[in-house]
Amino acid sequence: MLTTDPFDDDKLREECGIFGVTDAEGASAMVALGLHALQHRGQEAAGITSFDGHDFHTHRAMGHVAGNFDREEIISGLVGRSAAGHVRYSTTGETSLRNVQPLYADLATGGFAIAHNGNISNAMTLRRDLVRRGSIFQSTSDTEVIIHLVATSGYRTLLDRLIDALKRVEGAYSLICLTTEGLIACRDPLGIRPLVMGKLGESIIFASETVALDIVGAEFIRAVEPGELIVVRNGEIHSHKPFIPVAQRPCIFEHVYFSRPDSIVEGISVYSVRKAIGAELARENGVDVDYVIPVPDSGTPAAIGYAEAAGIPFELGIIRSHYVGRTFIQPGDGVRHLGVKLKHNANKNLVAGKKIVLIDDSIVRGTTSLKIVQMMREAGAAEVHMRIASPPTMNSCFYGVDTPERSKLLASRMDVEEMCKFIQADSLAFLSIDGLYRALGEDARNNGKPQYCDACFTGDYPTSLTDHEESEAGDLIMLGERKLA
Amino acid sequence: MLTTDPFDDDKLREECGIFGVTDAEGASAMVALGLHALQHRGQEAAGITSFDGHDFHTHRAMGHVAGNFDREEIISGLVGRSAAGHVRYSTTGETSLRNVQPLYADLATGGFAIAHNGNISNAMTLRRDLVRRGSIFQSTSDTEVIIHLVATSGYRTLLDRLIDALKRVEGAYSLICLTTEGLIACRDPLGIRPLVMGKLGESIIFASETVALDIVGAEFIRAVEPGELIVVRNGEIHSHKPFIPVAQRPCIFEHVYFSRPDSIVEGISVYSVRKAIGAELARENGVDVDYVIPVPDSGTPAAIGYAEAAGIPFELGIIRSHYVGRTFIQPGDGVRHLGVKLKHNANKNLVAGKKIVLIDDSIVRGTTSLKIVQMMREAGAAEVHMRIASPPTMNSCFYGVDTPERSKLLASRMDVEEMCKFIQADSLAFLSIDGLYRALGEDARNNGKPQYCDACFTGDYPTSLTDHEESEAGDLIMLGERKLA
Amino acid sequence: MLTTDPFDDDKLREECGIFGVTDAEGASAMVALGLHALQHRGQEAAGITSFDGHDFHTHRAMGHVAGNFDREEIISGLVGRSAAGHVRYSTTGETSLRNVQPLYADLATGGFAIAHNGNISNAMTLRRDLVRRGSIFQSTSDTEVIIHLVATSGYRTLLDRLIDALKRVEGAYSLICLTTEGLIACRDPLGIRPLVMGKLGESIIFASETVALDIVGAEFIRAVEPGELIVVRNGEIHSHKPFIPVAQRPCIFEHVYFSRPDSIVEGISVYSVRKAIGAELARENGVDVDYVIPVPDSGTPAAIGYAEAAGIPFELGIIRSHYVGRTFIQPGDGVRHLGVKLKHNANKNLVAGKKIVLIDDSIVRGTTSLKIVQMMREAGAAEVHMRIASPPTMNSCFYGVDTPERSKLLASRMDVEEMCKFIQADSLAFLSIDGLYRALGEDARNNGKPQYCDACFTGDYPTSLTDHEESEAGDLIMLGERKLA
Amino acid sequence: MLTTDPFDDDKLREECGIFGVTDAEGASAMVALGLHALQHRGQEAAGITSFDGHDFHTHRAMGHVAGNFDREEIISGLVGRSAAGHVRYSTTGETSLRNVQPLYADLATGGFAIAHNGNISNAMTLRRDLVRRGSIFQSTSDTEVIIHLVATSGYRTLLDRLIDALKRVEGAYSLICLTTEGLIACRDPLGIRPLVMGKLGESIIFASETVALDIVGAEFIRAVEPGELIVVRNGEIHSHKPFIPVAQRPCIFEHVYFSRPDSIVEGISVYSVRKAIGAELARENGVDVDYVIPVPDSGTPAAIGYAEAAGIPFELGIIRSHYVGRTFIQPGDGVRHLGVKLKHNANKNLVAGKKIVLIDDSIVRGTTSLKIVQMMREAGAAEVHMRIASPPTMNSCFYGVDTPERSKLLASRMDVEEMCKFIQADSLAFLSIDGLYRALGEDARNNGKPQYCDACFTGDYPTSLTDHEESEAGDLIMLGERKLA
Repeated sequence: MLTTDPFDDDKLREECGIFGVTDAEGASAMVALGLHALQHRGQEAAGITSFDGHDFHTHRAMGHVAGNFDREEIISGLVGRSAAGHVRYSTTGETSLRNVQPLYADLATGGFAIAHNGNISNAMTLRRDLVRRGSIFQSTSDTEVIIHLVATSGYRTLLDRLIDALKRVEGAYSLICLTTEGLIACRDPLGIRPLVMGKLGESIIFASETVALDIVGAEFIRAVEPGELIVVRNGEIHSHKPFIPVAQRPCIFEHVYFSRPDSIVEGISVYSVRKAIGAELARENGVDVDYVIPVPDSGTPAAIGYAEAAGIPFELGIIRSHYVGRTFIQPGDGVRHLGVKLKHNANKNLVAGKKIVLIDDSIVRGTTSLKIVQMMREAGAAEVHMRIASPPTMNSCFYGVDTPERSKLLASRMDVEEMCKFIQADSLAFLSIDGLYRALGEDARNNGKPQYCDACFTGDYPTSLTDHEESEAGDLIMLGERKLA
Repeated sequence: MLTTDPFDDDKLREECGIFGVTDAEGASAMVALGLHALQHRGQEAAGITSFDGHDFHTHRAMGHVAGNFDREEIISGLVGRSAAGHVRYSTTGETSLRNVQPLYADLATGGFAIAHNGNISNAMTLRRDLVRRGSIFQSTSDTEVIIHLVATSGYRTLLDRLIDALKRVEGAYSLICLTTEGLIACRDPLGIRPLVMGKLGESIIFASETVALDIVGAEFIRAVEPGELIVVRNGEIHSHKPFIPVAQRPCIFEHVYFSRPDSIVEGISVYSVRKAIGAELARENGVDVDYVIPVPDSGTPAAIGYAEAAGIPFELGIIRSHYVGRTFIQPGDGVRHLGVKLKHNANKNLVAGKKIVLIDDSIVRGTTSLKIVQMMREAGAAEVHMRIASPPTMNSCFYGVDTPERSKLLASRMDVEEMCKFIQADSLAFLSIDGLYRALGEDARNNGKPQYCDACFTGDYPTSLTDHEESEAGDLIMLGERKLA
Repeated sequence: MLTTDPFDDDKLREECGIFGVTDAEGASAMVALGLHALQHRGQEAAGITSFDGHDFHTHRAMGHVAGNFDREEIISGLVGRSAAGHVRYSTTGETSLRNVQPLYADLATGGFAIAHNGNISNAMTLRRDLVRRGSIFQSTSDTEVIIHLVATSGYRTLLDRLIDALKRVEGAYSLICLTTEGLIACRDPLGIRPLVMGKLGESIIFASETVALDIVGAEFIRAVEPGELIVVRNGEIHSHKPFIPVAQRPCIFEHVYFSRPDSIVEGISVYSVRKAIGAELARENGVDVDYVIPVPDSGTPAAIGYAEAAGIPFELGIIRSHYVGRTFIQPGDGVRHLGVKLKHNANKNLVAGKKIVLIDDSIVRGTTSLKIVQMMREAGAAEVHMRIASPPTMNSCFYGVDTPERSKLLASRMDVEEMCKFIQADSLAFLSIDGLYRALGEDARNNGKPQYCDACFTGDYPTSLTDHEESEAGDLIMLGERKLA
Repeated sequence: MLTTDPFDDDKLREECGIFGVTDAEGASAMVALGLHALQHRGQEAAGITSFDGHDFHTHRAMGHVAGNFDREEIISGLVGRSAAGHVRYSTTGETSLRNVQPLYADLATGGFAIAHNGNISNAMTLRRDLVRRGSIFQSTSDTEVIIHLVATSGYRTLLDRLIDALKRVEGAYSLICLTTEGLIACRDPLGIRPLVMGKLGESIIFASETVALDIVGAEFIRAVEPGELIVVRNGEIHSHKPFIPVAQRPCIFEHVYFSRPDSIVEGISVYSVRKAIGAELARENGVDVDYVIPVPDSGTPAAIGYAEAAGIPFELGIIRSHYVGRTFIQPGDGVRHLGVKLKHNANKNLVAGKKIVLIDDSIVRGTTSLKIVQMMREAGAAEVHMRIASPPTMNSCFYGVDTPERSKLLASRMDVEEMCKFIQADSLAFLSIDGLYRALGEDARNNGKPQYCDACFTGDYPTSLTDHEESEAGDLIMLGERKLA
């Protein structure tokens, strides 16, 4: 199977985006727009739950927000002035509707819907205990553990139960909970996954990125702080800090690739960070070429920064098709031998006979980089150099990002010289880890107390990884029941 | 909306049929056939769960068995040598996939799937308590209560937990449970709903009616006894009697209408009972006419018995369309004034100028009887008499049968004379309650200790009706979440 | 593949039913009802075209009328006070939407839609000539030939063009044409296929059978005469007889099996003919048994007639499932060895130990008869006799009925004794051809000038069979283009 | 309704792309890839016809190539070593499957399938005549006229018939015909629509643009010449020039917007033309700003050229969502007042406080330009200037491009100053017509004998416009039959 995303297939993938709103006319329509702006964070499925003061209404669907949540008959059924939604890219196990969020439960305290971005790293262990005590799980999602911890907590109020539950979980979570007690937004103590707060008239909005505020015309107020839990009820905003404070470690890869360039993440413009990365890269690893060519679209801002810093023309040497929204399964056997280029095409007339440097954000498996270099050579490029706008990606992420297992990461089994040979480039260089921190406005990485979670580059994980270490736990998380589509 | 079932719309409806099999090659295919034979017990949805010794596999679908469970891709996914299935007609609340059985849960003791025919009459009360203790319900089905009672039971083995759970529920249940400990079949102490056991080679089969044994070529062994719980495991059959014995009270309406005429219910041929009912009816309420005409198809055996006993020709005065499988929504406004007869048509040439007696099994709302009488008059019948093969239906059923609320039952608000006027017949008569018992081989109803549950005719309910009596409980059973299709 | 119609699979099939109406509020809704009543004449596809005085509106769909033409969004789009419709069972070639009628064309004289019951026996020859002259065919239907003959006719008015076209075709046709010049109904000179006229208020209705008049509450006026062409326009009815008169030869099998028992065909009640057939059969071929048992449902009227004439009890020894509307594909391999009875079940308790005679309408391939006899023997019947309510079916039909090729007809390769052995009955007898004519009120078949088309029994075809005789023509009728679903 | 293409909604749209191949293993799979590369030329529907030497196989579908023609079950049914395909954007009339190409007909000379890019400007007049002579049309497409002209031509061979037909039509056509006589490609005498020829091993390929050759790895040979008709049969290529030669007039807008930047059109690189256009624009209409910002994606090459020529930084001030493949219907009423930006978002952090010039390819209605200018102002831009990479679009196209009616074209009712005010820009300028010709390598437009068809800018149409001038003809082209979906 070839897809229209042959290059993106070789990216790390953010697993989720979340969006919630209170006190809004057409709350669920607003959530649909917000999720559309967050679609890059998860393309597999989406869901919205609304609350009308009495009942909760949910629709979940496989596929994109557009095509599902832009249908009047769907949105008109999601009544109420509060709503929360989720876009998902699933990596492990089953991709079925029962794992699509928001998850919902009828608790003794009332209805409770939850949308989660991140990953609970002791979910399997907690699940085993809960089942022993009589809890029945509906999904294979780690998120459901939080719901059962809330349901069985000994505390009386919903807020106490939720805090009780969160103190038992490890890992990364940005949460939006729709409850009869108000909308609750929360970020784990390390602040690994992003979450921002905005305002539109009377409505308070939470979203994974500021672009989701932009699309509904809302004003960006501030990021939810690591370890902060915010309750919005009857127009009042209450901030709680129920956890023991620790130094924050937000994900550095949000700046490299995940977030949209027009987002403001942890107070910084992603576009300007990526241009600064390009400039650092030019300074660290200059090369004498005719053109600077971005690998579209994620390499473009760094390429502009590189071209500017190096004083070399920026040119579109690779043209991307506009029609890559869905998978294109390569039809038939007869064309398998062809050099199929479903998503990108070389701008032959431009690159023929020229020396070029390609700018890409990262190398995961390296298969795509190889194809791009080959495409440039077939188009007649005289020299093809590659510069990468981040350090080598050497370690898996356990905090809600789909990474191939370690052994499939090119940088975990080759040094830079071998990688260069593998992708058949004339030269290859990566940005240094300190160069990356410099682009983010730091002097360098503080190795004693790193400013970001950069485990994918450094292997320095900020939490323990309970499930990962329990070898037998792998079976536990799967339901015995397999549903046919 | 007019449907192709204008007459059936005015019947009581059985809510469910169940079927389970062990140790069979192609177990799920066999369940599909069995459910097809039980389709008359529930046409809204169907489900099958199979167990392959390690995993459980489930498919549930809205609609008929044919069209869903005859597809190779579905059946081939339901692997394993044991399987259980369910057909459902739902009456209350939501008709969504999450209520379609078998229901499944991952318990600490392993996977557990359950198919239930009947109704738990204290389900709402039990549910409220379970939620208070942290149980999270997935469905609005009363059956899920049993699963949570099993999950949270203090006993260690699955069998003890199931018995513990069943001792807490009131009402009617015939159950088939597919578990890692074997297939478990069980019938409530009163034996309200039917359940039979059969055998095909090495396979043991349980089903609501013997016709489901016939379709797979299995041999009928015996009915599961009231209060009996049978475990089939590794080819061994163990019978348990865990409940305090009480006098049995099987549903009398199975003989009048629910069961297929070719079934053997509680040891008696339904066809011969219905012919005997017709003969009793002729004896009790003879009338001088030219033809005995059945209201097809359920009135036919009684009409044959009536004609034989009365010595009057049996004729097809009403022709039923063969194409009534699905709902036919009356299209357009323009034809609303027409005498639309989507399902039946008068055999005009036959009935014109004749005196006839129509034989039907029961009168529920009476609207259909009125239409049939009118249809016969429009066809030119000289006299139209109506004889009903059961006593007047005056009370709701709380044991798994869809009855209109009491006030909609014609017999609860009119005497026979008023009913006759309402349906515009020349005369109307019902079978007496003792006549019905005589047709079943009894001398009469034993009023001190009735041989059957005949509450729909007599109002004499054999269990307490906890939920029905708790007025506030109505809200509890509904999930707060409403899912859009 | 086993289906829910294992017995019907072994019937001859009528290919079509047609219905048209003028000057009616909600004309297309009325056509939908009429087609529903004619559903037994064709279950594969249906179509309706309406005319609003300016535009024609069409919807065609695979499947039943119910489920397609009872949807408000469909019917409300079929605006206009005139409409015509068609139900189809296709036998040859492709079963695709482009063959579903009414067929439509924009002619120089205006829009023209046609619904056809029958078969043009020189269609392939005519088509070849039309293509040579530049006509482009859209379908593989024989009916389209009529349209192109109309389009290319040298006459000026539509009526002259249609008559010109019909004079060139051979075979059987009952037609309803919706045109800008009015609704035109027409029957071929031999009157092979039926067509009746009815009236409801201002509306004139044409239909294949009177049951379609009954369902909309219309009054039956008369049959359209063989060779008659009726134009209804602006409330006026004009009858034309444009063909050279010949003796009529209506299809005798309409009385034996095709038409519904509640229809009046050529002025005679089908139900009473079938009862008379049963009585003739008892007289010609009596047998000493305990019970007369119909093969449901088509054998029932003849069985009642037989039982009455013979003085033997009529009993339901075979119970038919109500849920046979759609195909049930036998799932899985594991159950192939089982005696699968998806549609019928023996009433074991009744037939065990008894001598029975089964009454069926016809034997086509004989496979079903064999299964029924076996089912009765497995149920314990002491003797199983079979009586058939028509003469042996020995020849194919070329006039719009799906017959297996001659060599597959049991009666074409065995005598009655061999057939009896094949179906494993204790005795077998057929009605004589003169017995059949007697049941229709004739003294006997007039062999010099037969009163009916009985070619399926006698091989005496009333028209020439041009295409059948041109061996090479078989290819011509197929489009070179194959459309994927 | 708002869509994810709010900006593209305000573009002219190419109506079609075509692709054909001979002598290829997996021909239809190759066509699917080629059509995917041409998807920008038509997104509404697609079709492929293959020829296996005996039969033609067709599949047509609404929607994109991906999702329809990448399914194995579809492609595997399209057998044969020759195939042709079509992508379509329809503008007028009905958007139904019967208008989706390739159109097919069984002619006396054998099967004939045709894929057409362009528009026949006397189609309605020809159709009227053909219907009078007995031709029956299946579609409302102008292309079907060609088929009927071929079918009814007096010539004997298919090639003579096709040439005869084409001599009768006016307008623009690039055609690929799949016939039993070989694959035929043809371009109208003026060469208005593009068509190129390529080669891959033994296979000859025709396509609307060279990018479709690139995707299958084929070599570009040359453009099909205006007025040339090429027959490929049994590996031999025959070029015919059946028409009286005229000066060619290829569409100039292919260079401005329609063609992909990586295509070579009429021998010139589209990317380099667009960069040259940007440079001309900078020279003709410079402005003192901080940043040059493209309106993505079509304005990007011109913006790079402009930035380079003007020495001003090129920056991404507008970020385009990647998930714009399908329509996003704005859900609900509640968000209607919001500034919804489904497809683009301002890069606020970049543009705030800056003077910018936006580069776009054209202005059609102007509504989108207004929204973009407003978006930049809301993001805090100090000055917003707009430069357009083509002359004002003032006239409709009648050659296969969807243009709004003249009165809706902003430039047809306002001068540049008024337009500037309308879109609320600080300044607005268009490229001159001579500037456009210079970017194409000409000295200037040759007004006596223009090198291109530039009617959209100049109103100078190279053919007569028969249908447009016949006012009554509008009705003729529509079928009287309206099909419901």
